[in-house]
Formats: sequence, C-alpha cells, structure tokens
Amino acid sequence: MGDARRYFALPSPFAMKRGGELHGAHVAYETWGTLNAARDNAVLVLTGLSPSAHMTSCEEDPAPGWWQEMAGPGKAIDTTRWFAICVNSLGSDKGSTCPASIDPATGEPYRLSFPELALEDVANAAHAVVASLGIGQLACLIGCSMGGMSALAYMLLHPHSVRAHISVDTAPQAQPFAIAIRSLQREAIRLDPHWNEGRYDDASYPDIGMSIARKLGVITYRSAMEWNGRFARIRLDPEQREDEPFGREFQVESYLEGHARRFVRHFDPNSYLYLSRASDWFDIAEYGRGSVLEGLKRICIEQAMVIGVSTDILFPLQQQEQIAEGLEAAGARVEFVALDSPQGHDAFLVDIDNYSRAIGGFLNRLPAS
Amino acid sequence: MGDARRYFALPSPFAMKRGGELHGAHVAYETWGTLNAARDNAVLVLTGLSPSAHMTSCEEDPAPGWWQEMAGPGKAIDTTRWFAICVNSLGSDKGSTCPASIDPATGEPYRLSFPELALEDVANAAHAVVASLGIGQLACLIGCSMGGMSALAYMLLHPHSVRAHISVDTAPQAQPFAIAIRSLQREAIRLDPHWNEGRYDDASYPDIGMSIARKLGVITYRSAMEWNGRFARIRLDPEQREDEPFGREFQVESYLEGHARRFVRHFDPNSYLYLSRASDWFDIAEYGRGSVLEGLKRICIEQAMVIGVSTDILFPLQQQEQIAEGLEAAGARVEFVALDSPQGHDAFLVDIDNYSRAIGGFLNRLPAS
Repeated sequence: MGDARRYFALPSPFAMKRGGELHGAHVAYETWGTLNAARDNAVLVLTGLSPSAHMTSCEEDPAPGWWQEMAGPGKAIDTTRWFAICVNSLGSDKGSTCPASIDPATGEPYRLSFPELALEDVANAAHAVVASLGIGQLACLIGCSMGGMSALAYMLLHPHSVRAHISVDTAPQAQPFAIAIRSLQREAIRLDPHWNEGRYDDASYPDIGMSIARKLGVITYRSAMEWNGRFARIRLDPEQREDEPFGREFQVESYLEGHARRFVRHFDPNSYLYLSRASDWFDIAEYGRGSVLEGLKRICIEQAMVIGVSTDILFPLQQQEQIAEGLEAAGARVEFVALDSPQGHDAFLVDIDNYSRAIGGFLNRLPAS
Repeated sequence: MGDARRYFALPSPFAMKRGGELHGAHVAYETWGTLNAARDNAVLVLTGLSPSAHMTSCEEDPAPGWWQEMAGPGKAIDTTRWFAICVNSLGSDKGSTCPASIDPATGEPYRLSFPELALEDVANAAHAVVASLGIGQLACLIGCSMGGMSALAYMLLHPHSVRAHISVDTAPQAQPFAIAIRSLQREAIRLDPHWNEGRYDDASYPDIGMSIARKLGVITYRSAMEWNGRFARIRLDPEQREDEPFGREFQVESYLEGHARRFVRHFDPNSYLYLSRASDWFDIAEYGRGSVLEGLKRICIEQAMVIGVSTDILFPLQQQEQIAEGLEAAGARVEFVALDSPQGHDAFLVDIDNYSRAIGGFLNRLPAS
C-alpha cells in the first residue's frame, strides 16, 4: 500500500498566535481529484481533533479514510468535480509538526517546549498549504468538530479566501461544559504518573490516562438515546468479562474499552493535550469585542450550510444556530440543517446518509466554475 | 455540637440479594418530629449515593443537612406534622456497615471481601429500621437519585409498606449512558495505583482516581445550560491559576476542583465502588419478566408524585415518565412534575423553590391521619 501523504514546509519561522514560533515546521496533507485551470474548484476539509489527512482512499493509498463514504468519485464531496484537500492539523502527530517532533534547535523532541498552540495556528498552516497550491480562493471550506472552529478562524483571518462554507457539528466558542470535559480528559493524562510532565517513552507511557481520556471522549461524542437502542442493559458473555474486581460486565463497557484500545498508543499524549487546550481557547468573540455575533459578522463569504444535530451534548445545536445567525448577519446566504440523528456529536462520521444528502446537495448547488 | 445519629442493628445474619450475608451489621439513621399514636405519620427519605442520614439540622445536631431547606418545621417535609426518617444506605461509610467497616470474622476491614451489594439490600436495611420503629406502613416514601431506585425496590419487596411515594430525579433501571459514566468513574479509582485492589490507607490513598471520579460526577450532575450562565468563559485571576503545564485557567475548572477537594478523603473509595456498581445493577424489569412497565406494575401504593428535570443527562426525563406510567398502570393516582430547572440532575438539591412547591404540595394534600 502506498502513501498519498504530502508534506508542505511552512514558512520558517512560523509565527504562532500566542507568541511562540516554529522553525522548519511542516504540515501533512492529501488531495483527491484535479485542480482545474481556473484553480477555482478546490474544497478544503479541516478535521476534528484526532483524524489524519487521509479522509478517503485513493490509488496510492486504498486504505479507508476517516470520511470514506463522504468523499470520492460520485460521493457527496465528488472528486470528479472538486479538487479536495485535507490537511492534518498543525500540532497533530499524524504527519504534521507536533510536540512529538524533533525540535531542530535541540535535536530532541519538543514535548512541552512546543509553543502554545491555538486553532488560529492550525488555520494559518492550512491556509499556507492552499496558497502553496496556487489556490487564491477555495470553492468551499468544510470544517468538522474542532475543524469547524479552525475553519471559522481560517475565514476570519484570511478574508476573501473562501466562497462557500460548510460548518459541521461545531461551535463559535468553547462553552464551559465542553471545557470541563476536555479539562478532565487532560487531567486524566497529566495525573497519570507515566505522563511524567510530558517525558514519557514507549517503556513508560501514560496508557491509563489516555484510556480514561478516550473513554470520556467517546461518552460525550455519542448519545444516551443511541446507546439505549444499541446496548440497553445487555451483559457480556461470562468469558468476555474481566476476571477482576469491578471489571467489565455490560456491553457498553466493552465498547468503550475497544475504543480506548484503538486510540491509546495511536495518538501522542502531548499532542492531544495541545490540541485539546487549543479547542478550549477558541473563541470567535475575541474578534468581535466580546460578542460571538460580532465576531462572526467579520467573516466574508457568499454562502454557507450549517449542520448540527439535536443529540450532540459537546457542541449543542444552539451553537450551530449561533453560527448560522452570525454568518447570515455577515451577509452570507445560509442554509441551516438541524438533524435528529441519534449518534450525538459523532453523527457526521456515522449517519452518512443524512450528512451526505446535506453536504452533497449543497456542493451540487454551488455555481459551476 | 451533638450527634443526632442513631444506629439500628440489622438482623444477623443479614442476607444479601446476590448471595452474601453480613454479620453484626447496622445502619445509621436520623429522625425529626414525633411519631403519632397511630404510627401513621412517618415519611422515610432514601438518599443519593453520597449523602449521610443528616438530612436537616435538629436540636442535637444543628449543622445544616444535605436537604436543609426541604425538611424541618414549616418546610416542605414539615416535621411538625410528619415523623421524618432518613436512613444512611447500607454500604455507605456515613455510619452504616460498609466495605471500610471491620469484618467481625477477621477483625480487619472488609475492603473487597464485603459481599456484593445491591440496592435491594439498601432497601431491605431501610425497611428493617422502619419496622424496628413500630411503623407498619409509611405515610410517604421519598427517594432521590440512587435513593429513588432503592425506593422502588423497597415498595416492590415490601408490599403495603407504603401509602404514598415521591420519586425524585431517578430511574427504573440503569441505562447504558449512566452505566458508562459510572463505569468510567470506577475505572478512574481502580486504575489509580494507590487504590491497590482496595488495600489503600491514609498514607497511600487513591486521591487522583477519586478526584477524577468526582469531577466526572459533578459534570453529569449539572447541565451545560446552567454553566453557560454561571461560568461562561470567565478566566481565573492569574494568582488563582496553577503554575504547572495545562493547569486550571477557566472558572469552571476551579469549580470542579473545589468539588473534588470537598469529596476526596470524605468518602471511602471502596464504598463508592460498591454503591456505584449497585446503581448499575438496578433494574426493576427483573421483577417484570424483562419489562420495566410490568416490574413497576407490581408496586402497590395509593398515590405518587414523580418529579424529573429536563436538563438531567444522567437520569433523563423519559425515565421518570416510565416510572409515572408504570405506577399509574399499577393503580396509583400519579402526579407527574417535569421541571425545567437549569441545574440538571442536582436540581433537587439546588432549585429548592420548585422542588419544595411540588413535594410540599403533595405532602400537604395527603389525607390527614
């Protein structure tokens, strides 16, 4: 299996929002489809906290991507029409420069000496990739979850760089419930003695903290309603149970454990901490003299679709309503799609039918280039 | 300050639902008001997971109780009319026999050799206290949160022992979302190396696990809506922040930390694990051939009030609707009160105005003895 991943060297030094800078940094990205001669058919996707740039399969890398059913020939993000780009967030360990990368100044991993990371930095790095491809304006910018916040930053910091926007299950600012959840996830990692102030290695690794953080994530990414139908009170078979006090007994506990096992050791703990905190810090109101609406009004695009789901407890529907109102007040034509998918925040990864219909429909209606 | 706490020695051996038995066990309780000559003015309150029997102040113990504003002379649970009893759950370390108690067979604390605890055992122990006071039938049984589940068990296992029932923010069975949360709380404790399979002591104590468990509890006991108004994105003053990487920065983080500090070392970790698992195990459907409705239909009372709150994510309103429907199908006159208090599951402890009005109104309308 090949690798479709490409790397873009960021300008060096790359100045960060909160004052630090990176030298010799890069971001990973992938593309699908063909950029047309007018360079006006590009669609950029910014991801949630943990996915890589491998959004969907391609010839060089046929492995399924994190949004496999959403993007590809004939799919909602139709790569026979669009030149699709997915950028791995700066600070993520899926190919971009991150706290696990080697600091060229020391020859050692950055760990906690990595500069403070904001989603504005993630946005600026993605914008640099797009500019490097010779694209002056994106036909559409799509942002999911954390990537939706990065997308708002992208549009605000780079006026006229985007014609249309699709906002998916995200928020214009971190609210205290989401901050509390993420803070507790970070605390589970930080308080794991093997985290060791970021100086873990393979032999001594914060597995327990990462496992608790991931399980808490999964609980808040899904919904109670879905689980009532899916797990109810079904017990594990006796041979599946743990032979230890207070071990797993219900299917839902085994489901969480499976998610944790697929995550722990597959995501760098320090990178997780940096991206998690960047999410807490994000607040479009900073650009609107304390007002979310005023911040959003500074975004200059032609049209947008804002999608949210009523079962999302991490990014509640009212926050997508705020985004829709703000973009409308900014002069964009806005379609608001409130879904009732039972899967909670993760619906955009699971309820492909409804999300495809919305996203594909919006993209299909965009004026031909 | 005196102590109003009394102790009732349970019959020995005390047989437990899941097969174990306790020898020489007792439960702590307090009472307020006077039992009348007919012994028909008793109101029993069964508590959530962590409160003691000290529901409200009294002459011997003027310290405020956990439901201080709800019970007392002239209050909703009016102790000039009612003889109020609050029993500390069997298995809780607030005076009742629990995993931290000395096992008379060994002279050592039970720790994990404490028999498996179910809420049916909590109910049976409370019923034994009531019977010991010469009360054949309660005028009203009130159960809050976990205590609401214990109350359902009480009424089902002891037919005709209760005339009226008030069900507060509870559920007829544990659903997978609540199981997931509690499982993760237990895991945070179990995975703390200082838990040491239950063999901790003051010098080596699972502070971190208990702190994470408590913070997760507080997050699910409240609501996002309340926190938007209360904390928004307010930062801590610089001198309140932690001087360590990824330390607390937002007020909501400091709020969680305060809650954790007031809990850790004030509740025995093993007792917490036992009561938490007992909550997961509870399922009224066990008594109804797999049907919640059929289980509830076996409860024989005259009337009930069922209270829930729309912002509760741990015991969602639909579960109180189920209780109301089931008790009605069982032949009781049922009043259903759906509140919109912003405080989530904890509303019964905070929104005293609305809960007082409902509970006091119901009790005042009960026929005079």
